[in-house]
Amino acid sequence: MMETRSPSEHQPRLMRAIGALLRGQRVAALATLEADGSPFVSMVPFATEPEQACLVLHVSALAQHTGNMARDPRISLLVMQAEQADQPVHALPRLSLLGRAGTPEPGGASWAACRVAYLARFPEAEPMTRLGDFRFVAIELSGARQIAGFGAARSVDADELRRILALSAERPPRSAHRDSA
Amino acid sequence: MMETRSPSEHQPRLMRAIGALLRGQRVAALATLEADGSPFVSMVPFATEPEQACLVLHVSALAQHTGNMARDPRISLLVMQAEQADQPVHALPRLSLLGRAGTPEPGGASWAACRVAYLARFPEAEPMTRLGDFRFVAIELSGARQIAGFGAARSVDADELRRILALSAERPPRSAHRDSA
Repeated sequence: MMETRSPSEHQPRLMRAIGALLRGQRVAALATLEADGSPFVSMVPFATEPEQACLVLHVSALAQHTGNMARDPRISLLVMQAEQADQPVHALPRLSLLGRAGTPEPGGASWAACRVAYLARFPEAEPMTRLGDFRFVAIELSGARQIAGFGAARSVDADELRRILALSAERPPRSAHRDSA
Repeated sequence: MMETRSPSEHQPRLMRAIGALLRGQRVAALATLEADGSPFVSMVPFATEPEQACLVLHVSALAQHTGNMARDPRISLLVMQAEQADQPVHALPRLSLLGRAGTPEPGGASWAACRVAYLARFPEAEPMTRLGDFRFVAIELSGARQIAGFGAARSVDADELRRILALSAERPPRSAHRDSA
């Protein structure tokens, strides 16, 4: 049999738009679940980690979303083009991601890769990574809903997201990346 | 007994910051619950409605968040200052709101007030309000978490939010407001 392609592989423009959002925006809206099952949404800076093809957060143990993710790892993340004054907002390109939050063991290979990816984007966060009450969170994505403009919506599967993430590092990993593992 | 004041009433600067966010930002991240109880976050344009002291959304019956809110009205909304290129993001002022979504009966007084508030902010949405598959959603707020900068977090109660909303209409209600009810 011929290798089959998902319909989304015929959408290079839409795939590029996802990569542009993940590279161009530095913050996302993170939805987590409270103890009673109600939703809670908060802002998180995020980075992309190409080797594990995941998103990386760096959160305080004191933050509400951190406790929520420890209790129930199901999350959703919205990455959207920031609104501009005097420009219409209804058709802003955006991506609603679904996934699960994992906490890599400090000092391990996954943690080190998350740290490199996060600090490549947010070097100013380096002092916080030395504080005991902050931790890295690796988000494994299971799918997404992409809105590329008014009426232009489609579902995106996990494989396509993984391919995009593998290419979407803000800066290519450097030797320090592998050395730190 | 003297009238008691909540601690938050001694925070006029923080109250003003909430009003500035609700007036200055036109879109929010809406967290809703999927059928299996997992969170889903999507972008929504929003307006403030001073008489009911609620937030107003205008959503398509086809959208995932619309079905989610019809099934379970518990929602959370994030309103945040948009990120600026070359500016740090970790301390962006933001507000995580908690509330419940209600659907005012089309043609009723609450619906009419929601429509006036929404179109004052988004006049370009007027044609969509004539489509049968769009509806207004009134968000009744029960509380919020305000992040006014790095390490500057506080809880905000429903009374304070109601007072802010009663003053935070983008434009004061005009006579058409009452006439349309």
